[in-house]
Amino acid sequence: MTRKPGNEMWGGRFAQGPDAIMEGINASIDFDKRLYREDIAGSLAHAAMLAENGIISKEDEVSIREGLETIRSEIDSGAFSFSREREDIHMNIEARLAELIGPAAGRLHTARSRNDQVAVDFRLYVKSALVDVDAALTDLIEALLTRAQEHAGTVMPGFTHLQAAQPVTFGHHCLAYVEMAARDRSRARDALRRMDESPLGAAALAGTGFPIDRHRTATELGFREPTRNSLDSVSDRDFAIEFLAVAAMTAMHLSRLAEEIVIWSTPQFSFVQLSDAFSTGSSIMPQKKNPDAAELVRAKTGRINGSLVSLLTVMKGLPLSYSKDMQEDKEQVFDTVDSLSLALAAMTGMVKDMAINADKMRAAAGAGFSTATDLADFLVRQAGLPFREAHHVTGRVVALAESRKVALEDLPLADLQAIDVRLTDEVYSVLSVDASVASRKSFGGTAPENVVRQIAYWRNRLAE
Amino acid sequence: MTRKPGNEMWGGRFAQGPDAIMEGINASIDFDKRLYREDIAGSLAHAAMLAENGIISKEDEVSIREGLETIRSEIDSGAFSFSREREDIHMNIEARLAELIGPAAGRLHTARSRNDQVAVDFRLYVKSALVDVDAALTDLIEALLTRAQEHAGTVMPGFTHLQAAQPVTFGHHCLAYVEMAARDRSRARDALRRMDESPLGAAALAGTGFPIDRHRTATELGFREPTRNSLDSVSDRDFAIEFLAVAAMTAMHLSRLAEEIVIWSTPQFSFVQLSDAFSTGSSIMPQKKNPDAAELVRAKTGRINGSLVSLLTVMKGLPLSYSKDMQEDKEQVFDTVDSLSLALAAMTGMVKDMAINADKMRAAAGAGFSTATDLADFLVRQAGLPFREAHHVTGRVVALAESRKVALEDLPLADLQAIDVRLTDEVYSVLSVDASVASRKSFGGTAPENVVRQIAYWRNRLAE
Amino acid sequence: MTRKPGNEMWGGRFAQGPDAIMEGINASIDFDKRLYREDIAGSLAHAAMLAENGIISKEDEVSIREGLETIRSEIDSGAFSFSREREDIHMNIEARLAELIGPAAGRLHTARSRNDQVAVDFRLYVKSALVDVDAALTDLIEALLTRAQEHAGTVMPGFTHLQAAQPVTFGHHCLAYVEMAARDRSRARDALRRMDESPLGAAALAGTGFPIDRHRTATELGFREPTRNSLDSVSDRDFAIEFLAVAAMTAMHLSRLAEEIVIWSTPQFSFVQLSDAFSTGSSIMPQKKNPDAAELVRAKTGRINGSLVSLLTVMKGLPLSYSKDMQEDKEQVFDTVDSLSLALAAMTGMVKDMAINADKMRAAAGAGFSTATDLADFLVRQAGLPFREAHHVTGRVVALAESRKVALEDLPLADLQAIDVRLTDEVYSVLSVDASVASRKSFGGTAPENVVRQIAYWRNRLAE
Amino acid sequence: MTRKPGNEMWGGRFAQGPDAIMEGINASIDFDKRLYREDIAGSLAHAAMLAENGIISKEDEVSIREGLETIRSEIDSGAFSFSREREDIHMNIEARLAELIGPAAGRLHTARSRNDQVAVDFRLYVKSALVDVDAALTDLIEALLTRAQEHAGTVMPGFTHLQAAQPVTFGHHCLAYVEMAARDRSRARDALRRMDESPLGAAALAGTGFPIDRHRTATELGFREPTRNSLDSVSDRDFAIEFLAVAAMTAMHLSRLAEEIVIWSTPQFSFVQLSDAFSTGSSIMPQKKNPDAAELVRAKTGRINGSLVSLLTVMKGLPLSYSKDMQEDKEQVFDTVDSLSLALAAMTGMVKDMAINADKMRAAAGAGFSTATDLADFLVRQAGLPFREAHHVTGRVVALAESRKVALEDLPLADLQAIDVRLTDEVYSVLSVDASVASRKSFGGTAPENVVRQIAYWRNRLAE
Repeated sequence: MTRKPGNEMWGGRFAQGPDAIMEGINASIDFDKRLYREDIAGSLAHAAMLAENGIISKEDEVSIREGLETIRSEIDSGAFSFSREREDIHMNIEARLAELIGPAAGRLHTARSRNDQVAVDFRLYVKSALVDVDAALTDLIEALLTRAQEHAGTVMPGFTHLQAAQPVTFGHHCLAYVEMAARDRSRARDALRRMDESPLGAAALAGTGFPIDRHRTATELGFREPTRNSLDSVSDRDFAIEFLAVAAMTAMHLSRLAEEIVIWSTPQFSFVQLSDAFSTGSSIMPQKKNPDAAELVRAKTGRINGSLVSLLTVMKGLPLSYSKDMQEDKEQVFDTVDSLSLALAAMTGMVKDMAINADKMRAAAGAGFSTATDLADFLVRQAGLPFREAHHVTGRVVALAESRKVALEDLPLADLQAIDVRLTDEVYSVLSVDASVASRKSFGGTAPENVVRQIAYWRNRLAE
Repeated sequence: MTRKPGNEMWGGRFAQGPDAIMEGINASIDFDKRLYREDIAGSLAHAAMLAENGIISKEDEVSIREGLETIRSEIDSGAFSFSREREDIHMNIEARLAELIGPAAGRLHTARSRNDQVAVDFRLYVKSALVDVDAALTDLIEALLTRAQEHAGTVMPGFTHLQAAQPVTFGHHCLAYVEMAARDRSRARDALRRMDESPLGAAALAGTGFPIDRHRTATELGFREPTRNSLDSVSDRDFAIEFLAVAAMTAMHLSRLAEEIVIWSTPQFSFVQLSDAFSTGSSIMPQKKNPDAAELVRAKTGRINGSLVSLLTVMKGLPLSYSKDMQEDKEQVFDTVDSLSLALAAMTGMVKDMAINADKMRAAAGAGFSTATDLADFLVRQAGLPFREAHHVTGRVVALAESRKVALEDLPLADLQAIDVRLTDEVYSVLSVDASVASRKSFGGTAPENVVRQIAYWRNRLAE
Repeated sequence: MTRKPGNEMWGGRFAQGPDAIMEGINASIDFDKRLYREDIAGSLAHAAMLAENGIISKEDEVSIREGLETIRSEIDSGAFSFSREREDIHMNIEARLAELIGPAAGRLHTARSRNDQVAVDFRLYVKSALVDVDAALTDLIEALLTRAQEHAGTVMPGFTHLQAAQPVTFGHHCLAYVEMAARDRSRARDALRRMDESPLGAAALAGTGFPIDRHRTATELGFREPTRNSLDSVSDRDFAIEFLAVAAMTAMHLSRLAEEIVIWSTPQFSFVQLSDAFSTGSSIMPQKKNPDAAELVRAKTGRINGSLVSLLTVMKGLPLSYSKDMQEDKEQVFDTVDSLSLALAAMTGMVKDMAINADKMRAAAGAGFSTATDLADFLVRQAGLPFREAHHVTGRVVALAESRKVALEDLPLADLQAIDVRLTDEVYSVLSVDASVASRKSFGGTAPENVVRQIAYWRNRLAE
Repeated sequence: MTRKPGNEMWGGRFAQGPDAIMEGINASIDFDKRLYREDIAGSLAHAAMLAENGIISKEDEVSIREGLETIRSEIDSGAFSFSREREDIHMNIEARLAELIGPAAGRLHTARSRNDQVAVDFRLYVKSALVDVDAALTDLIEALLTRAQEHAGTVMPGFTHLQAAQPVTFGHHCLAYVEMAARDRSRARDALRRMDESPLGAAALAGTGFPIDRHRTATELGFREPTRNSLDSVSDRDFAIEFLAVAAMTAMHLSRLAEEIVIWSTPQFSFVQLSDAFSTGSSIMPQKKNPDAAELVRAKTGRINGSLVSLLTVMKGLPLSYSKDMQEDKEQVFDTVDSLSLALAAMTGMVKDMAINADKMRAAAGAGFSTATDLADFLVRQAGLPFREAHHVTGRVVALAESRKVALEDLPLADLQAIDVRLTDEVYSVLSVDASVASRKSFGGTAPENVVRQIAYWRNRLAE
């Protein structure tokens, strides 16, 4: 094979030799600049603590603070010029600080290193992301509760194997996703609590001999407490992985609802119709509404699973403490933050906006002898048959209805009794889909009154 | 290509046609029999509740209970004959129960289905597995604390990039793994708390019209409370995935220590020597001790990551409620339970048994001017240099020592002062590795007194 | 938390101490016994070559051969007693050989080691598995071609976003899966060709000083040639990973068809009906046919992706040459062989057996103005409109039909011409679904004559 | 928990409502603009073919061509203004073309759709990326061959379990990586050959009724032939996944060499020293050279595995034909192209530049009685002992040497013969590391003459 020139977008990019390669693989400023606010917050807290403990002078602290605030404004406004030669966000800011305030900038680095600096920046970022995920999940739960309230009594098929099995209410179906989102929120909070420890002051890896006050900087930065082991502080990325695991499970839940929306939006099902905002049309087939947003939400689970795998793989077998491999942590988390926030916002929007076709749902719920289980339960309850035996009787009733192409409730009593004399007139009260759902009052069951009660329960808990 | 006969182990196995294929892909008894104790416990609780609430008679409950206890004994003793035709553990037990007690067996199935039955069985299993993981992590922490205590003052190199950077103590290094294992334990407990809800009584998917008491069965089975939504109850596998995520992070931590043990066991490092129990020798090279156990622990992270990926992938995009896909959940969890328990036990054993070569550690800690940072810190502290400037001075001192091939503490004061007059006689007090580690008393730092304090802290918390 | 006893299935299993742990983590006989035929074949070839080259005597070779054949019979018949103390299949067989033939058994190990022995065994196994996968894919392709032939002219909706977009034929749809399966087969063959090198004779890692003939053993074992580098020979597991990658892509394809079968089997779609052999019914809802086999096929993709991730993760960062981590390779491959063979057999069975509801397909194909694109193409072709403009005209026609709730072909010509005078009587010839599919004769298009031609093409290529 | 404002980088970004969310999740222009050259090439070929076949006029084709060339220049020069409202690269270019040439732009879209357009663009891109990967692998192989040539006779320890087992040559070690890279190259070529089919002309999904010539556009774009099935053409992403699988295996190989470089660069091993270009120093510890580039190469395997998992997960269970989920394919591939090209370039650079410390290698090779196997082989060869018995004798010799703390070759003959009389004077000729490596002349063995021969073999094959 001849070596013809490849893709011009990237081929030959390393013609310049080792330096270009090393800069390409080593520099992180292109992505870690996203941490500038966290980096500056960490430096401000560190400087204040150093001054309070007499490690740097009050004057130095003032000029450091003013310099950092200037830099923050510069970056906020887009005026800051990032440099790949300065590798990362820490060195970009430190070098700029030196330009602004001179040698005092060098005192900021007392009793810390880039190893604990990046650890504190990144934790601050992930903590904040979890707060946002929590808020976005709360929005989704609220949207689901609103739809559940509207449809506490709307009957739809309850599916197993995507085949209608028993009638349920759409409100109850919405509440199933409330449970999932609430577990996700609970996982986000557990993760947040666990990572709420400040690594600042762990220095390069061994701690420091300077009389620093790590509890002070931890508090200042909003952490519950400082970390307890300096080696672990600079080599731990559990907080990032746990965030990704929380995100992966959340994305999986979203993918299930997204799949349902895609299926429910087909002309064949027609259970729901997405609003124009969340679908794309076709200039030529105006009846066609592609559920693009749902498909994209469904796809995000692939991406987020991939990021989780990435970071678990990167960390596998790394000796303590810091290794450069760990620099690969940020892009996975940033991408997941973006993907998950979009997916949550899109799903919340779809849930709020989509039109529910209650007639189609009801028709599908009633098809297929979906109340056959109710008939069997009736026989157990009223006539004392063992459940397995009641099943057999029911099977014969269903077979009769099927052969006549009528619904169960349309079979005359005489025919029912020809099958089993214990079938009395009362049986008709259990054969409608409304009676079926109304009867399922066991805790957690689909009865509309249960749905209303669960909505109230969750509205209470949302404020937690 | 001609189609010559392939592997005789599996080729042609489906010659018998569709039935054999369907049995092969559908039957789960080969693996889910592992749940027989949980299945029987669930049935006992269900039957007792049915009787208490007048849904079945007391007599039926007694014969069901006795029948189930007989079956448990049969399985315990190996006398039970499992059948693939009966598909799964539930049907195997139910069919046997019918043989033993007749029609009353059919009443056990009142107000439940295989969907909530398998959900409760599997949750009970995972809960129990998490209790065991917690215990195994506690054992590992205890082993690490014991070694940390012995070596609170044993100096070793603190590595970054696998290059010695600053001296630390081996006790401190052990405590870094205590932090990881403690986070793992904390994650296991959060997961356990979250899954501590009983799905029993969700029935097929919609709840039931029978007047069952789900709080009663929940309590009887050791759950905090029943689940709140019947659809979610039968379609949720979060508890399994969260278990796998906890396991994956734990395995990743173990892989890091395993990697260190592999590297430390080389003749080049010689920091540790595994006991014979955890290594394999060579009949021909008696000095060779292969760290097999450490390598296998390291490898388990691949396997467990794979199981996590499997289940996340299986659940992606599944519409509610139960789909047969979900049957793929158990083998991944069972394999992870086995792998993780072995890995934790092996690591705990290695930690307990391995010989520490303190001399080799100390020698490595002192090489490479590892106290250069201490010299820089001295200049900041004593002479008020900005840290960045102190770095430059130190660089020149190190260069001098390197050119003379001596350690920093072996340079005469005059030579030091020729570089910078602010270097006084006191500097020698910071240049030894012992002085270095002793000085790092910041919270979380490596000073032996800190190590001792952290051991006490963890011994207290272990009892929690 | 108190440490109550956990799951009795595995808790406390390591009470016996380090030896039990080590045996548990180290022994591979429980799974690698599956390689006994390959192991014996490798030994027979090695012994024959040793004798041919005068390294062992002819007599020794005869007794080794007879001993190994005895052992093979013992294992075949179930009479062989495997021992965990003898760790793996190699030592189990070697130890038994020594019992059978005495010291000559020790000569078999000349010029080889367990490192090249396991490499050759496992390659033989994977090669054979690929031959079987090839055959199973060929079966699937044949089944698809048969259905494509039957349904070369059966019209169904062509979906994008699970919304009907344009009519296609079911035969054409089947052929899309033929393309996928053919690519899978092609990948299996490439992988097989690449791994067709014998590692036997690489010995421990460095080759050997004995005058062995590696080309001879390679040929004897059915390999194209011997491997070229002894270090690579014992540390390479590419062949296993590439097998898993081939399997993962195949499983992904199967999951797509499985998903379609699940959706098509709903009462809402009713495009297909699985045979009883591949679905499960409900004793109580006889109309309900759960597509269990399709769901399980869909789920296998999770499992196989997981195995791929496992082995890629295990191999990450392993220094040369053999490390014990690599022992984790076999179970992933064995599980994938079983899963994939079942999934392929089940899918082939479903494809063969399932009933096609052509009426339902046709009705769905005709709904939703699915020939609107044909109308636009007509305007481009007949009236020379730019495609984008033709789209706009078509949009107005569709809007009219929609407002009148009629099909496109039911609009009177006058109304069409009121929209655009260039619409002539000929337009009706393009508006039926049959006309639409018949017109798409571009290479690879859905026209029935194309489908017939492609079936012939593939029947020819199948014999390759 | 109060909902305090989260990360300002992304929190509240969707305050503007559904439109902003939909644009955020739907628009692909931010990443797919990377395909502009491929997109324009595809359009040029399509337009030329349409004109040749009389579907559009020659004049239209000329203005389309000129317009597209203008647009290419605009994008090349940075003058083009991309718009998120126009969603993707196709619509951005098409809309700009309409601005430039008016209605004729609308004719370009005849007989194609965005579905086949993106398929052809992306295949062109991936093909090109594979050509570049092939070239980069060839560079790496050349670098390895050069070092192998220099060090065909340089003795180093051959490791198993990271313990020295037998001496090998560094040249032989390099050649092991040549084998891996050559397999990677072979996989890249197979993948390229398999994907070398043009989907252009599949149109939306069904083909087209226009008399297009797909063989013509295929040839024009450098494809071997057109695809055979229109549904498959627009729903297939095998080419992307196979690229990722090839990349994952390549990255895994690189991670192994990277790990070795990290370990070999420690002061404890000191086998190699990276050049300054590929390591980072410390201003304060001048002796410290962090192998950053090697660590980053090692880490890339996580990232690439993650991308493979992502796309396999995205494609799982997608019904035919195009679904929006598939839009998630590009970023994973782009990221992998960047990561892999950097990793290959960095590794090639390191291999070329790193200094080899042959003395350290030799010393390590000779330690630990690494020629004990040679002694055993001697006994088999010279004295006819069964290998297992020879092992035992050797074990006793080693034990003696160990107790005396001398090398094997330093034991007097009398002492050897006290252990076994069959040990003759000739044994000394096999006990040196040089004799050991020289003796291993079996095909693929480590003997320097083999290494030289293999280098010649590979130099020949490189030109293929």
